[in-house]
Amino acid sequence: MHRAVHIRRLPRLAAGLQWRQRPRWCAPGGTRGLATTSDLPTAIPPTIVRRACSDPGADSEADHQYSLGWAGATPRTALVVKKADDTKADEALASIVEWLQTAYPQISVVLEPAVYRQFRGRLPHVRTVAPGSRDEYARVVDFVVTLGGDGTFLHVSSLFREQVPPIVPFSMGTLGFLLPFNVADFPTQLHRVIEGSTTLLPRMRLVYSKHGADGALDARGRLNITNEACIHRGTYPHLTTISCYLNDHLLTTSVGDGIIVGTPTGSTAYSLSAGGPIVHPLVSSMIVAPVCPRSLSFRPLMLPSSATVRLQVHRQSRGRATAYIDGRDCGELLQGECIEIRRSPFPLMCVNRDDLAAGWALDINQLLKFNRTFSYPHESPFSDRPPGALDE
Amino acid sequence: MHRAVHIRRLPRLAAGLQWRQRPRWCAPGGTRGLATTSDLPTAIPPTIVRRACSDPGADSEADHQYSLGWAGATPRTALVVKKADDTKADEALASIVEWLQTAYPQISVVLEPAVYRQFRGRLPHVRTVAPGSRDEYARVVDFVVTLGGDGTFLHVSSLFREQVPPIVPFSMGTLGFLLPFNVADFPTQLHRVIEGSTTLLPRMRLVYSKHGADGALDARGRLNITNEACIHRGTYPHLTTISCYLNDHLLTTSVGDGIIVGTPTGSTAYSLSAGGPIVHPLVSSMIVAPVCPRSLSFRPLMLPSSATVRLQVHRQSRGRATAYIDGRDCGELLQGECIEIRRSPFPLMCVNRDDLAAGWALDINQLLKFNRTFSYPHESPFSDRPPGALDE
Amino acid sequence: MHRAVHIRRLPRLAAGLQWRQRPRWCAPGGTRGLATTSDLPTAIPPTIVRRACSDPGADSEADHQYSLGWAGATPRTALVVKKADDTKADEALASIVEWLQTAYPQISVVLEPAVYRQFRGRLPHVRTVAPGSRDEYARVVDFVVTLGGDGTFLHVSSLFREQVPPIVPFSMGTLGFLLPFNVADFPTQLHRVIEGSTTLLPRMRLVYSKHGADGALDARGRLNITNEACIHRGTYPHLTTISCYLNDHLLTTSVGDGIIVGTPTGSTAYSLSAGGPIVHPLVSSMIVAPVCPRSLSFRPLMLPSSATVRLQVHRQSRGRATAYIDGRDCGELLQGECIEIRRSPFPLMCVNRDDLAAGWALDINQLLKFNRTFSYPHESPFSDRPPGALDE
Amino acid sequence: MHRAVHIRRLPRLAAGLQWRQRPRWCAPGGTRGLATTSDLPTAIPPTIVRRACSDPGADSEADHQYSLGWAGATPRTALVVKKADDTKADEALASIVEWLQTAYPQISVVLEPAVYRQFRGRLPHVRTVAPGSRDEYARVVDFVVTLGGDGTFLHVSSLFREQVPPIVPFSMGTLGFLLPFNVADFPTQLHRVIEGSTTLLPRMRLVYSKHGADGALDARGRLNITNEACIHRGTYPHLTTISCYLNDHLLTTSVGDGIIVGTPTGSTAYSLSAGGPIVHPLVSSMIVAPVCPRSLSFRPLMLPSSATVRLQVHRQSRGRATAYIDGRDCGELLQGECIEIRRSPFPLMCVNRDDLAAGWALDINQLLKFNRTFSYPHESPFSDRPPGALDE
Repeated sequence: MHRAVHIRRLPRLAAGLQWRQRPRWCAPGGTRGLATTSDLPTAIPPTIVRRACSDPGADSEADHQYSLGWAGATPRTALVVKKADDTKADEALASIVEWLQTAYPQISVVLEPAVYRQFRGRLPHVRTVAPGSRDEYARVVDFVVTLGGDGTFLHVSSLFREQVPPIVPFSMGTLGFLLPFNVADFPTQLHRVIEGSTTLLPRMRLVYSKHGADGALDARGRLNITNEACIHRGTYPHLTTISCYLNDHLLTTSVGDGIIVGTPTGSTAYSLSAGGPIVHPLVSSMIVAPVCPRSLSFRPLMLPSSATVRLQVHRQSRGRATAYIDGRDCGELLQGECIEIRRSPFPLMCVNRDDLAAGWALDINQLLKFNRTFSYPHESPFSDRPPGALDE
Repeated sequence: MHRAVHIRRLPRLAAGLQWRQRPRWCAPGGTRGLATTSDLPTAIPPTIVRRACSDPGADSEADHQYSLGWAGATPRTALVVKKADDTKADEALASIVEWLQTAYPQISVVLEPAVYRQFRGRLPHVRTVAPGSRDEYARVVDFVVTLGGDGTFLHVSSLFREQVPPIVPFSMGTLGFLLPFNVADFPTQLHRVIEGSTTLLPRMRLVYSKHGADGALDARGRLNITNEACIHRGTYPHLTTISCYLNDHLLTTSVGDGIIVGTPTGSTAYSLSAGGPIVHPLVSSMIVAPVCPRSLSFRPLMLPSSATVRLQVHRQSRGRATAYIDGRDCGELLQGECIEIRRSPFPLMCVNRDDLAAGWALDINQLLKFNRTFSYPHESPFSDRPPGALDE
Repeated sequence: MHRAVHIRRLPRLAAGLQWRQRPRWCAPGGTRGLATTSDLPTAIPPTIVRRACSDPGADSEADHQYSLGWAGATPRTALVVKKADDTKADEALASIVEWLQTAYPQISVVLEPAVYRQFRGRLPHVRTVAPGSRDEYARVVDFVVTLGGDGTFLHVSSLFREQVPPIVPFSMGTLGFLLPFNVADFPTQLHRVIEGSTTLLPRMRLVYSKHGADGALDARGRLNITNEACIHRGTYPHLTTISCYLNDHLLTTSVGDGIIVGTPTGSTAYSLSAGGPIVHPLVSSMIVAPVCPRSLSFRPLMLPSSATVRLQVHRQSRGRATAYIDGRDCGELLQGECIEIRRSPFPLMCVNRDDLAAGWALDINQLLKFNRTFSYPHESPFSDRPPGALDE
Repeated sequence: MHRAVHIRRLPRLAAGLQWRQRPRWCAPGGTRGLATTSDLPTAIPPTIVRRACSDPGADSEADHQYSLGWAGATPRTALVVKKADDTKADEALASIVEWLQTAYPQISVVLEPAVYRQFRGRLPHVRTVAPGSRDEYARVVDFVVTLGGDGTFLHVSSLFREQVPPIVPFSMGTLGFLLPFNVADFPTQLHRVIEGSTTLLPRMRLVYSKHGADGALDARGRLNITNEACIHRGTYPHLTTISCYLNDHLLTTSVGDGIIVGTPTGSTAYSLSAGGPIVHPLVSSMIVAPVCPRSLSFRPLMLPSSATVRLQVHRQSRGRATAYIDGRDCGELLQGECIEIRRSPFPLMCVNRDDLAAGWALDINQLLKFNRTFSYPHESPFSDRPPGALDE
């Protein structure tokens, strides 16, 4: 059983404030009038502990939930993310930043450049990364707060090349698979994160790479996938022929609109629309699902997460195709070109509800409208009698 | 456009009552103290007119809705059906019978024997069919009122060997595909039926026959199907191998739990659970759907209603099977035995809502929870930009 | 039973040739050196007779197969169609034209302009339609011969505004749903067509129209659909919200990649990939099937052929969409715009195999690989015994 | 890379034979004339080593293939299993036993009682377990050879209460997921097993228990599941209402024919027929799939292998149900009774092909006929041009 949550620690933090004479966010940093992250300290490695299980009979080996801690330290830098044009999240962002700077003055708050420009007047102590210094996110950020929908959450993955700091995802309204917390509860949740008494759900990611017909790696290199990679013919009129390889063995050659390779997290995204199963995020697996295949028998596949999957536009395919990652266009694939997908060693560590099973059960029912039973009794009340027995 | 409904006709009916000195339900009939149907006149053939369509551009040929009329006569005998043990329908039955006997005293009310025994004290003028006189229903009944669920409705089909009189189906609660009217509205609906100003929906039925391995017709003869015929292995442990023939041509041989052959009406019953499409009742077609087939590629089939389908337990099948009609067990099928299904020339003529399309749209949404969209936006708001474009 | 086929009639035709002193194809017609159709006589209306059925017990009303005849006349003009760039069909086209001109010299052969230009040197007597005279096809053509794949067949539908003459479709290789005859058999099949002793399969078509947000009909007017109309988001990143109306009643609002409205003929095309049922061409129905819907519960629908279906891009849809007919791009749909689909009064009359049921059964098995049973016995041979009974 | 296989070791074994003066199988054991296992030594614990991976970039943590070894010892007791009534396996059994006794005379061969009785005349040195001594299998058997179909393989699981020795499964004909080796290759495969140079595939099992409405464990205790547990209404006419709990949280309540909870191994058995995904055996997960649910939206679920799933017949369910394990009837479930399923700590260790990915790819293609593409091109060759462009 993980230890209880103590919200009462706030006073100690306020005391800590006395100790630090000059709040860290007073140091303005420098490039071209921007308050940048250049003088911020490097991130504290979080301590991520597999939670012991209160049930002595349980298979603790298999319990993949984790607790987040900071090994005695406290986090010093938070990245707060929202879409630049999402005005509905503006007030929440300002409230969170102000709350953080009051309750935890030792914590510097970083915003992405576009959001920084929007708020620098209102929130004078926030910082941003200098142009071209994208690696600064990985260098300084201890944890990430996201405000908005799934897209905002997915975006975070693209800011970090490899390891992503723990993410605290807030919904502005409807909760969801990726958004377990309502923004109205931010003080409680952020306290727990900073104090190191919260539950982490590791969300497996995949790594995508694109290769020419000669096998050469595309200039854009390897990209992280949170939901799915997809090859789709888009508006190209001819069906695309795609060969799918598992660890270099030809698994199948599919003619159709496309193929999806997804994570368990992505199982409730595009893969679900394409007919894939609903996969709990703790299952370590990749989904392969077809999009409108010219076949009656392309049932979705669940492959081990150790698999390497290669999708190649067949050299004789009439149609070309486009590659997508998490819904974003990643460029055209000509005949013979391929993408390769394998597990990323860097899952997203997402702060989550303590009872993951209950939350997931709620989500598939409320969000996906899972297993809505017909209202109308079509069974035959006469069926338990011999035919014609009713009237005699 | 069909003519407007005139509920005001009730006075004329009352006048008609004056003319008939002795209400018809006073004639007690006779076998063993039962008030039987033996002295009732034969049924009036209803006039069923394809409704003209108000839209001059519409394809009136294809508009399969009908109006019910009585060619100047008025109906004289109503059969009111409920399950004998369905006590929730007791009051509704009594109310309807009493209302009919008051508003239309020339109409005799017939009940099935078990229901008759239950109500003969309370409703002295009702009648029933004499034991062994099942053909009396077809001889005397002008229209049928059903009270209860789908099973009650389905049961009516079994009371008539061939033609079934128009049916007015009332739900005791939730409306449904087969139950368009709430019993609370019975005076309005029954007025319209008796006055001949109501809409009929013809529901195609199928005819089932069972044959020995030598082709001989089973002693039970031909039976009508409203929803579906099904061959299923039940609890027999081995999968059953069933050959399916279309007009004597082998269509497929299936190994699995079973095969369903259904009507459009049955498309929202067992066939839907087995993965079949939702078929509007005006589509003239048979569904063939597998139950847990040992195949990835047994997609449901829609055959023309003129088809003859034969399902034969394969002579080398390891498992036997059981035949079901509308959920009722119709006996075991040994290896080599078969059932044959073709369209019945006698559809069920069901009184329905005037606007069938609107009612059907409502039903599939409310009852089947058709196309419930996910609440949660899984699309990426960033997807219309190049990756990484967000923060620059 | 339809009358037997008499291939021996060829001599009588040769005699007919004597009577017509000047073969009709000698009249060169005129625009700019083209041998056009301008002096050809108008088409002979074919006599299409519902085939009587040899089985006295059968429901002949429902037997929708037809025989083609010419009411004593013989056809005078044949249109022969192939794709201009399909060189594999070149020899077949030349053979057919030469055979027609020898065996039936009274028959003029028309080619589409691009094909005409290709063959005018080799086949001096062929004709074509003058530029801008597309209605000439409808005026003069008695029957159409197609050489090639499904696309060639589908193309014919676009050459005629309303009624299409009977089509004799030849495959250059694999037979298929739309291509019942191998080109190697052309003399037999064409004899039967010209002599009026062949079987017609009417393939229902749909009519498509596109409307602005104000309801105004698009300038391109109404177009015929052989397989399906489809609204699809294509590469547009946001899911499209589409409202689907049945006879002006809202049936459902779908978020997803798109919606397909298909004919029975189209049930084995894109709709099948999207999860729709396999529909026999004699079923009079429209299929509505979703493409990757954001819903677990959008089961395909079968609507009556009398239905009018309207698909409207929702006014608040984030994404636009594109309309497609039979796979061709028919333009973008903005928010509020819609397409309307109803049955065409002009089915395609396709010359087909005499035994339609056998041919269709063959097609779904050979072409679609329908219901391929697993090779591997996963049933338990022990399952008919109590557990553990094996070893005692 | 695992070390190469050396079949040449046979001479050393023959030498070993010299050393052991009296072949172990000469010791006849004793109960009532049976040569029992009572004097056999206890089994040697196999050494099961996770295979190192030759690809330095691979995620070796996730590579769940194992090598079988015997830690310097050699196995001393083999159990050979076939169905008692499977006469097709008789010759293979005799050949294997004779080969084992010649090549490895130190190995005792054990048969199940019914098979022992059949072969004791022909194979004088075989042994069997004494009546009521079922635990002897676990005490003495070093590895198991199965001859027959899937059922024979599944049966082995029931002979051992907990840990099952490594299994070498031979098919008598068609290879399959569970049967990677043809019996014709038995000398090669058995050499490799006994020499400790073979590949093991661990197949996760589940543990089933049945509980009364008061929670009490059923007298039959806990049983192992190799493919699936299933609750099904069988021939009971009313649909069964089953509540499904995940770690004590209500996940869903299903009305329908039944629910399946399966292993990855079982994903190609009954779950596949019910619409479940194809799951690679190295994925650590449980499948929950409905059987003919009265819902459009019961998509199959993949749960983490650490989950505890409880299926309870709802207290208000109209219908009862029957529990099945791997196809065997395990008794009726009344309203309120439940079954509980969790991961077994004892997977089946199956000797397998060295290249698991290639073998699995072959199996899903050859056995399941996975993704058979339509033969017939339904795409439109005209679709890449504007409509009507063909003839200009």
